[in-house]
Amino acid sequence: MKILGAQLTPVAFDDPPLLNVMGVHEPYALRSVLRLQCEDGIVGLGESYGDAPFLEQLGKALAALPGLDAFDLPALRDSVARSLGHAVITDAHGLIGGFSANKTLASVYSIIEVAAMDAQGKALGVPVVDLLGGKARDRVDFSAYLFYKYAAHQNGRTDDWGEAVTPEQIVEQARRMIGQFGFGSIKLKGGVFAPDVECATIEALADAFPEHPLRIDPNTGWTVPTSIEVARRLGGVLEYLEDPTPGIEGMAQVAREARMPLATNMCVVSFADIAPAVRERAVGVILSDHHFWGGLRDTSALGTLCDTFGIGLSMHSNSHLGISLAAMVHVAAATRQLTYACDTHWPWKTQDIIEPGVLTFENGSVGVPTGPGLGVVLDEDELALAHERYAACGQTARDDVTYMRQYVPSFTANIKRW
Amino acid sequence: MKILGAQLTPVAFDDPPLLNVMGVHEPYALRSVLRLQCEDGIVGLGESYGDAPFLEQLGKALAALPGLDAFDLPALRDSVARSLGHAVITDAHGLIGGFSANKTLASVYSIIEVAAMDAQGKALGVPVVDLLGGKARDRVDFSAYLFYKYAAHQNGRTDDWGEAVTPEQIVEQARRMIGQFGFGSIKLKGGVFAPDVECATIEALADAFPEHPLRIDPNTGWTVPTSIEVARRLGGVLEYLEDPTPGIEGMAQVAREARMPLATNMCVVSFADIAPAVRERAVGVILSDHHFWGGLRDTSALGTLCDTFGIGLSMHSNSHLGISLAAMVHVAAATRQLTYACDTHWPWKTQDIIEPGVLTFENGSVGVPTGPGLGVVLDEDELALAHERYAACGQTARDDVTYMRQYVPSFTANIKRW
Ligand SMILES: [Mg+2]
Ligand SMILES: [Mg+2]
Repeated sequence: MKILGAQLTPVAFDDPPLLNVMGVHEPYALRSVLRLQCEDGIVGLGESYGDAPFLEQLGKALAALPGLDAFDLPALRDSVARSLGHAVITDAHGLIGGFSANKTLASVYSIIEVAAMDAQGKALGVPVVDLLGGKARDRVDFSAYLFYKYAAHQNGRTDDWGEAVTPEQIVEQARRMIGQFGFGSIKLKGGVFAPDVECATIEALADAFPEHPLRIDPNTGWTVPTSIEVARRLGGVLEYLEDPTPGIEGMAQVAREARMPLATNMCVVSFADIAPAVRERAVGVILSDHHFWGGLRDTSALGTLCDTFGIGLSMHSNSHLGISLAAMVHVAAATRQLTYACDTHWPWKTQDIIEPGVLTFENGSVGVPTGPGLGVVLDEDELALAHERYAACGQTARDDVTYMRQYVPSFTANIKRW
Repeated sequence: MKILGAQLTPVAFDDPPLLNVMGVHEPYALRSVLRLQCEDGIVGLGESYGDAPFLEQLGKALAALPGLDAFDLPALRDSVARSLGHAVITDAHGLIGGFSANKTLASVYSIIEVAAMDAQGKALGVPVVDLLGGKARDRVDFSAYLFYKYAAHQNGRTDDWGEAVTPEQIVEQARRMIGQFGFGSIKLKGGVFAPDVECATIEALADAFPEHPLRIDPNTGWTVPTSIEVARRLGGVLEYLEDPTPGIEGMAQVAREARMPLATNMCVVSFADIAPAVRERAVGVILSDHHFWGGLRDTSALGTLCDTFGIGLSMHSNSHLGISLAAMVHVAAATRQLTYACDTHWPWKTQDIIEPGVLTFENGSVGVPTGPGLGVVLDEDELALAHERYAACGQTARDDVTYMRQYVPSFTANIKRW
C-alpha cells in the first residue's frame, strides 16, 4: 500500500492551569495531527507533540515518505533515520527525561508508525490491536490523574474544576473525577508544594479512598534524602513512587530504602537506559509511552523486556487528544505484560478532533475500539477549529516555567528543590 | 475468525547419520504438522517437534482451541497455559538446554501461534512478515551447517554426502554445500571428536574459505579450561563460539578469556535465562528459535531485548521441513536486530511436505515468501507419505545416544567430555 502523501496539522486545545515541578500548564496544549494518505483513498491517522522543534523534524521526515509502503515499517523507520541524521530535539518542558538522537528518531518515527498501522488496519479491515497480536484484555484501565491547580489562567479563563491547592481540594477533585469516570486508582502530580503538604494530600486521599491504589509523581522534585523520607512516611500507602529524584544513581539510592517500587518516565526513557537501570536496580516500574518509545510495536516489545527483568509496566501520559488515546488503548490491550492502570490527561480537556462516542470511560476503563485501524474518525470541523486555535494562540512550544512567572515572578523549576 | 478444529499429523523424513555430542541422528527425523481449521475454509499451518511427549502435550492444547478467535493470540496462549497446567516436557535429546513449565508452554504455544498467524495472513491476504511489522530485509541469510557424519545408517541406507570424519572430508562437504546453496558463512557441529581434531577442521575450513565467517558448536562438549584453550587457538578465526561448555557460570568463565563472542541455544533458552546471563556477561549472541521461544512475536521481541543489552542475535535450527523454514524466514525478515546468518538443516533432507518452489536458496539466502500467510502450500500426497513413514519407522522420540551404541557400543554422551 503505497504512501502518496502526508498532511501535518498542528492543533491547540484549552488546557487548565495545572501545576507541576516546572510551573503551570499554559492556556493551550499543543499537538500535531498526521494524515498519511495512501493508495485506494486510505488515510492513516497519528497524533503527537505540537511544539515547533518537533514539527520541524517531523516535517523533514514526512517529506521523504511518499512512494514507500505503509506495511513496510522497517523501511519507514530507516527513511525517518535518514531524514533526521543525528538531529536531537531538546525537550524544553523537561518532564520526560534526557535527549538523544535515538529518542528523537523514536519520537518522530512513532507518529508515522501509528498512522501507518491505522492505514494498515483500515486496508485490511482489522483493528490495530489485532496487528499487534490481539487483545490481552478487552478494556484498558486508567488512573485518576489529579493535579494541584489554579482557578484561572492569566487571561481570565476558568474551568469547571476550580482551584486545588490544599489536600481538601484535591480530595474533592478526586471525588468528582472518580464519580465521573469511575477510576479505580489515583495518581497525584506532585513536585508543586513542600513534600510535607504533598504527603498530607496523599494521606487525605488514602483516608477518603481506602480501596484505591495511590501514586505520587513529583517529577524529580526531591533530593535523595527527602525521597527516602517520603518513601518511609508513605510506606504502606503508595502503590508506586514515581520519579522522586533525578537520575538512575539517585533513584537506585532511594530504591534501596523504599518499600514500594519506584516508577519512572524520566530516568528510563529509551532502550539505552534499561541496561544501567537494571544493573543498579533503580526502578521497579517503567511508564511506557509509545510517543517516545518508538511506536506501538517497540512499546509492546518493552513489555517483554520489563517482564524478563521483573520490572512492572505502566503507561505515561502527556496532554493528548483522541487519536493518541486510541493508540494508547490498542497497544495497552495488546501488551499482556502491562501490570498497572495507565495514566491519561483525558479528564482535563473539553475539546477534541475526533468524532465522539468511540472512546468512553466506564469504571475507569476504555474498551478497545473495534473499527478498522485505530477505530476513530477525524472530525474535520473540530480539527479546523483546533488548528485555528493553534494559529491564534501564539504558543509554539511548551514552557511552563515562564508562564508560571506570571503567577509567581521569582519562580524557578522545582527539580531537586526539596 | 473462529477456530473450528485442529488436525495434527506426525511425520517422519529421512535423516542422514549426522554426528553430534549426543551420538548420531537416527534414520528418521520426526516432526508434527498442524492444520488449524478456521471459518471460511481457511486453514493455518504450523510445524514443530514430532516426538511423543510433545505430541501428547500439544494434543491436550489443541483440544481446547475450537471456538477461540485465531486473531486473539493472548487468548490462545491462555488456553494453552490452562490445558498444560504445570506440565514439563523433558527434552530427551538434550541439545536445547533445560526444561521448565514456561519453556513447555512456549513450545506448545509456538506451533499454534504460527498456524494462527498463517490463518490470519490468509484471511487478510498479507504475508506473515507484514503482520510482524514488515520486512527489515527482503532475503534471509543462512549459514552452511556442516556435520561430521557416517556414510551409512545401520539399516544400510546411504546418502549423497558420504562419510565425513576428517578435516578433508568436512572441507569437501563445505565445498559441495556452498557450491549448491551459495552460503556465505559456515557452521561446524562439533562435540564429536577430540577438540584438537575439531580445531584442525576449523583451520582447514579457514584455509579453504578465507572469506567465510566460521562458527563451531560442540553442544557443551568441553570443560571450561578446554573451551578457553580452543578460544585461544581459534582466536582470529571464529565469528562466534557456540555453547562450548554447559551453564551460564561456565560460559561466563570462558567469555572472560575469549576474543570472540560466545553464542548459545543451550544456556539461554527462555526469557527467564536472560537476566542471569546478562548479569554474568555469559553470552554475546543468542540463537533464537521460535519453536521454543514462544512463537514468532516473542522471537521478534527477543530481538529488541538482545539489542537493548548489546547481545547479538542469530537463529538456531533443528531438523525441519518447509513450514518451519517459512516461519523462520518470516520472523527473521521482520526482526531488524538479527545480526548473523541463521542456521538451517535444510540441505540435509531430501523430502518435504510442502509444494516446492517457494523456498529457494540463492547465494545462501531465502527470499521472504510473498503469498498470504506463510506463503507455503501443503503437498497432501507428500504429507500422507511422510505420515506413513512416521507410522512405519517405529521411532517415537529422538534418541541419538542409544542409536549411536549400534555404531559404538560403549558410547555415552560427550557433554563436558573433553
Ligand atoms: Mg511521570
Ligand atoms: Mg547450537
